[in-house]
Amino acid sequence: MKETRVNRILTALEEMHLSQILIVDPMSIYYLTGIYNEPFERFYGLLLRADGAHALFLNRLFNVPEDVGVTKVWYSDTDPVMEIVSGYIDHTQVLGVDKEMKVRFLLPLMERGAAAGFVNASKAVDFTRGIKDIDEQKLMQTASAINDRAMDRFKDLIHEGVTEKQVADQMLQIYQDLGADGFSFPPIVSFGANAADPHHMPDDTAVKPGDCVLFDVGCIKDGYCSDMTRTFYYKEVSDHCREIYELVKAANEAAEEKVRPGVEFRELDQTARQIIEAAGYGENFNHRLGHFIGLSEHEFGDVSANNTDEVESGQIFSIEPGIYLAGDTGVRIEDLVLVTDQGVKRLNNYPKELQIIG
Amino acid sequence: MKETRVNRILTALEEMHLSQILIVDPMSIYYLTGIYNEPFERFYGLLLRADGAHALFLNRLFNVPEDVGVTKVWYSDTDPVMEIVSGYIDHTQVLGVDKEMKVRFLLPLMERGAAAGFVNASKAVDFTRGIKDIDEQKLMQTASAINDRAMDRFKDLIHEGVTEKQVADQMLQIYQDLGADGFSFPPIVSFGANAADPHHMPDDTAVKPGDCVLFDVGCIKDGYCSDMTRTFYYKEVSDHCREIYELVKAANEAAEEKVRPGVEFRELDQTARQIIEAAGYGENFNHRLGHFIGLSEHEFGDVSANNTDEVESGQIFSIEPGIYLAGDTGVRIEDLVLVTDQGVKRLNNYPKELQIIG
Repeated sequence: MKETRVNRILTALEEMHLSQILIVDPMSIYYLTGIYNEPFERFYGLLLRADGAHALFLNRLFNVPEDVGVTKVWYSDTDPVMEIVSGYIDHTQVLGVDKEMKVRFLLPLMERGAAAGFVNASKAVDFTRGIKDIDEQKLMQTASAINDRAMDRFKDLIHEGVTEKQVADQMLQIYQDLGADGFSFPPIVSFGANAADPHHMPDDTAVKPGDCVLFDVGCIKDGYCSDMTRTFYYKEVSDHCREIYELVKAANEAAEEKVRPGVEFRELDQTARQIIEAAGYGENFNHRLGHFIGLSEHEFGDVSANNTDEVESGQIFSIEPGIYLAGDTGVRIEDLVLVTDQGVKRLNNYPKELQIIG
Repeated sequence: MKETRVNRILTALEEMHLSQILIVDPMSIYYLTGIYNEPFERFYGLLLRADGAHALFLNRLFNVPEDVGVTKVWYSDTDPVMEIVSGYIDHTQVLGVDKEMKVRFLLPLMERGAAAGFVNASKAVDFTRGIKDIDEQKLMQTASAINDRAMDRFKDLIHEGVTEKQVADQMLQIYQDLGADGFSFPPIVSFGANAADPHHMPDDTAVKPGDCVLFDVGCIKDGYCSDMTRTFYYKEVSDHCREIYELVKAANEAAEEKVRPGVEFRELDQTARQIIEAAGYGENFNHRLGHFIGLSEHEFGDVSANNTDEVESGQIFSIEPGIYLAGDTGVRIEDLVLVTDQGVKRLNNYPKELQIIG
């Protein structure tokens, strides 16, 4: 167990007047133990207790090293697993539960009266994970450095007649050649009007002169994720496309400049949104400005209009304004930023000036 | 909406004395609507009510066709989503909830008193999905037919010095060449002692003469999954390996022969397990005999020692006994079977006789 991280979580729990939490997110368990298991439909949980009676619940099919620094409680597929788990919970106290825990594991604990109450206590874990320690910051920088180099190669895949899918199919190899372990999420490659859908999946659309070419891509390296979006133009760019590109770029840069400890997340969102709204495209920027990232591509925490939390040193999140014009075109420009005591450090450094390619 | 499937679920709910269910598993929503969205951390749900006041809850970022045959309720990232959902639930009645629903969506409904009670009602959906209709049976057969052809090619990838990872890295292309859309799960390729871990992930181990070569692989085609395991031997096979191979094969075949409507799942498990136990390897078969499969690789329902449910016509599940000897070797032989009124039909037809390859 990584004691410093465990203690940060126990301190956060204490502030919530809680003395125990059942963590089930495999990534959070990895964060605390260095062990990763993908439990699929089986139960996998780490109970942390203020009195130190921690326990890791494991199906006999899972693989863990001999010494994990925490009591291992094994169960088989035929065991009544939630009855076993219940035996390790302090029934006289409220149990903090992981927001990711599923109904089929929670309801049996409730029906059994396994705790004095059940509350979503994931914030204790999420805020801890949200502030990256030095080791994590280095790993995040490495993953984003690979993403910078990959973007340069992705752009070169665009040529007359190539389809989104053909481009996307070559990306994994490029990431692997650059030392990444895989995608951090399925890559988005959108040509022309397809870019008007922020979540468009690569299809058989071929690129045409004048199309925007949007890449929203990331890799995973040693467990940590990168995520960056760049929008290029193939062969030529219309004045209309240039106008919205420059707007999005200005929104991205203005928001990034505002990042520093103490600013509220909603101010970052507003900074970008106001620039886009002032130009009449407010309705065409239909998502939050950004999300936290680390071991998972989307972690708890967002840069949105209703997040009044203050930015803290050590956090890493995306800044990704966009403008989406249905049936026409789309632009998004996304960086990952690390909050420092001094202000902000961008993790990816791929240029943002409008580029005509092909 | 696929009315026949919706009605089968409503009938099942009625038998549980329930009049409403909130379904959140994206695959179950796809099963009922033909629409797939991957909501990531956002809420995505389909409320089915006996009075017909169904509703589909959608984030504005999700994409759905104009006409889905059900009331669409849109929300934005800044909306209080569970308050909105609560407005569509009959507060005077118990709400059936999807077993996959997460604590962070369930607890806000509980705290708001959105229903008269909350029970895990997934069985209504799961049993319905567990019995495949004719359209689904055809799609499952197609996916398994591809898997048969793929196995033949995978086997040919084994040559002097090749590593598990090198083999695994070539599999996606082979599936795609054969018309599949992708993997149904990350392929397992295990050489020699690595096969003693049923969930071993491909690594840099190179094949050696006498090694077992275990492939546990499946593809997805038009939304439906295949899954098959075969164990080969490279260059030569020891008497010891041959003995456990033949045991596992006998266990697989004996269990498959027992499949017919009315038999209890645990009898299938026992049939295979007794053969392995009688030979002294009971402890080395440390998992259930099989699992259901369809739109997802692992669906609700298992073929295990404690499942007293009776097999029904139209169900599709795996039969996959194994013997795992730590530090030595492993064998697993897995087929998918479709239960028919007459008995059983195997979906994959790759031979099971011991094969020496390379």
